[in-house]
Amino acid sequence: MKIAVLPGDGIGPEVTAQAVKVLQALNSDGFRIEMEHAAIGGAGYDAAGDPLPDATLKLARESDAILLGAVGGYQYDTLPRPMRPEQGLLRIRKELNLFANLRPATLYPELADASTLKPEVVAGLDLMIVRELTGDLYFGQPRGIHVNEAGEREGYNTMRYSESEVRRVAHIGFQIAMKRGKKLCSVEKANVLETSELWREVVIETARQYPEVALSHMYVDNAAMQLVRNPKQFDVILTGNIFGDILSDEASMLTGSIGMLGSASLDESRKGMYEPIHGSAPDIAGKDIANPLATILSAAMMMRYTFGHDGVADRIENAVKKVISQGLRTADIYTPGTTRVGCAAMGDAVLAAL
Amino acid sequence: MKIAVLPGDGIGPEVTAQAVKVLQALNSDGFRIEMEHAAIGGAGYDAAGDPLPDATLKLARESDAILLGAVGGYQYDTLPRPMRPEQGLLRIRKELNLFANLRPATLYPELADASTLKPEVVAGLDLMIVRELTGDLYFGQPRGIHVNEAGEREGYNTMRYSESEVRRVAHIGFQIAMKRGKKLCSVEKANVLETSELWREVVIETARQYPEVALSHMYVDNAAMQLVRNPKQFDVILTGNIFGDILSDEASMLTGSIGMLGSASLDESRKGMYEPIHGSAPDIAGKDIANPLATILSAAMMMRYTFGHDGVADRIENAVKKVISQGLRTADIYTPGTTRVGCAAMGDAVLAAL
Ligand SMILES: CC(C)[C@H](C(=O)O)[C@@H](O)C(=O)O
Ligand SMILES: CC(C)[C@H](C(=O)O)[C@@H](O)C(=O)O
Repeated sequence: MKIAVLPGDGIGPEVTAQAVKVLQALNSDGFRIEMEHAAIGGAGYDAAGDPLPDATLKLARESDAILLGAVGGYQYDTLPRPMRPEQGLLRIRKELNLFANLRPATLYPELADASTLKPEVVAGLDLMIVRELTGDLYFGQPRGIHVNEAGEREGYNTMRYSESEVRRVAHIGFQIAMKRGKKLCSVEKANVLETSELWREVVIETARQYPEVALSHMYVDNAAMQLVRNPKQFDVILTGNIFGDILSDEASMLTGSIGMLGSASLDESRKGMYEPIHGSAPDIAGKDIANPLATILSAAMMMRYTFGHDGVADRIENAVKKVISQGLRTADIYTPGTTRVGCAAMGDAVLAAL
Repeated sequence: MKIAVLPGDGIGPEVTAQAVKVLQALNSDGFRIEMEHAAIGGAGYDAAGDPLPDATLKLARESDAILLGAVGGYQYDTLPRPMRPEQGLLRIRKELNLFANLRPATLYPELADASTLKPEVVAGLDLMIVRELTGDLYFGQPRGIHVNEAGEREGYNTMRYSESEVRRVAHIGFQIAMKRGKKLCSVEKANVLETSELWREVVIETARQYPEVALSHMYVDNAAMQLVRNPKQFDVILTGNIFGDILSDEASMLTGSIGMLGSASLDESRKGMYEPIHGSAPDIAGKDIANPLATILSAAMMMRYTFGHDGVADRIENAVKKVISQGLRTADIYTPGTTRVGCAAMGDAVLAAL
């Protein structure tokens, strides 16, 4: 198993370091994990003048899976757009064809208090957002800013989905639903957008191959409401790139502890990039106070989705549950009565629990 | 003051009837309100084969303001798209150039329990979303479904904003912020979309004319999170049509009582259409259990924004506060210990409190 490790910026290096420790500890006879590091985001710009250096892309292509920390930092905010850290992220998704973004929103019972929602609304929350990641407004052509016939500046982007793009991510959604609660809610805006109309048609066609999955459809505005009103009604939410960007961030905040949530971005052959959903948090970088659990849980997702080692994934997830039940907390999830630990100590605790 | 009353479908007729009673009661010497009814949505389709009949559009054009109930019903779901009820809504917005959609999310202290968020997170919530309503993906050309070069069906829509479209709605946003907490947060996705990049530039330019307003910018995914994490950080949120559709529904659900929220859609000369943010709720239509307060509060917004009668608006809003503090509740906001009343009785109570 060859893994490219791309720590990125801010707290990225320190949280990936903990996940790397965990992955290393898994090495044993008959289970060989090989890891190689490379720069991405601001670190890529600093090292090679490019948020996605050629060497990084080459390493990522040659690897079976990628572990990413986070990208972004204040010092890069004034760079021209193609040089900004997030462009490294968008480009690696597109170059590697990582079209299926899996973003679980799971609540640990011990952390229910951290949510701004009432405990009874979020207790036991366990939903999975499957977001399309290489199409839609993010990549649609034409796009740009021009001067229109009226002599005014005008910005434009194109929302676009072909049936094969919808179908392949729908299959992922249904397959995941089959392994979970067998419910899938497809979210779009088919009452207004033709792109959504086609999306809905293709999802309905694809659903015929998964007769056991209960399929529903919801408009995106209603979905944004229902996530607040009653998030536990959902099992798998399947949606496009821009709606998924918005809804998955909303859903993750329902748990109150985004330092605990990992994500996967998969291609057709289950090669994937794994990263915490939180950002690079430059303000707390280098202080050994960041929460490494989201990155460690992303490594567990890697074992599950790319390498098919569900047992190993379970082991990592159980180790995380154990340190939480032991009362260990990083600053972001600390409450009185628990034990506050730093980033590295949390990584060590997971190692010990493993 | 000439008002077009468009009751629409489902509970639309019964809730508008209560607001009409309130408006009628305001008639006095030197204050003449004239009202005329017309059909829209499913009712327009039933009456004239068109969700926006010519006669309705003509009446709306000739009126100073429009009071709308709600549109939509199961029996119209299978109609071809141009005949569907919501097309009547989209067309009247566009035809009348109602580009500024004002959607307040206000929490009544007595109703704080209805929220799924913890009381301390939403107590005193009072935010205003200003959503652009006649541009963006909703109306951008080109749009459609075609077969692409690869022989596949492909859906596409165009996100598009010109600088004048952004500027006019930004002015509304800043003017409203001046009358409120003097804080405006502009929401877009400028790290990915050129349309958003232009949006941000024009908002910054416009802000120079409102030096007292503190301007901030937020990406839409972060805004969806922050509304859950700490909604009270916001005063006015300014955003485009599709992001506003999603965020305003999310924001309204934070209050837990969408039966209490009105909205305004204004043109350049402050002519406006006023409507509750809730839908047509066909399942409870005709049972006299719907909550008319959102529509009555929409009538108050009409007095404020179109007619400039802030005093009258205050009177209506205070009457609503009074019936709430008297403990009167329709089914949607009922809790044990309060007095349950029907739709018409709630209207009468507001009349009495006036
Ligand atoms: C950083 C940004 C470009 C990115 C996105 O919009 O996809 C992020 O918000 C995410 O969800 O991974
Ligand atoms: C019914 C629908 C077309 C409409 C919209 O998307 O604008 C509604 O959701 C709204 O927010 O008024």
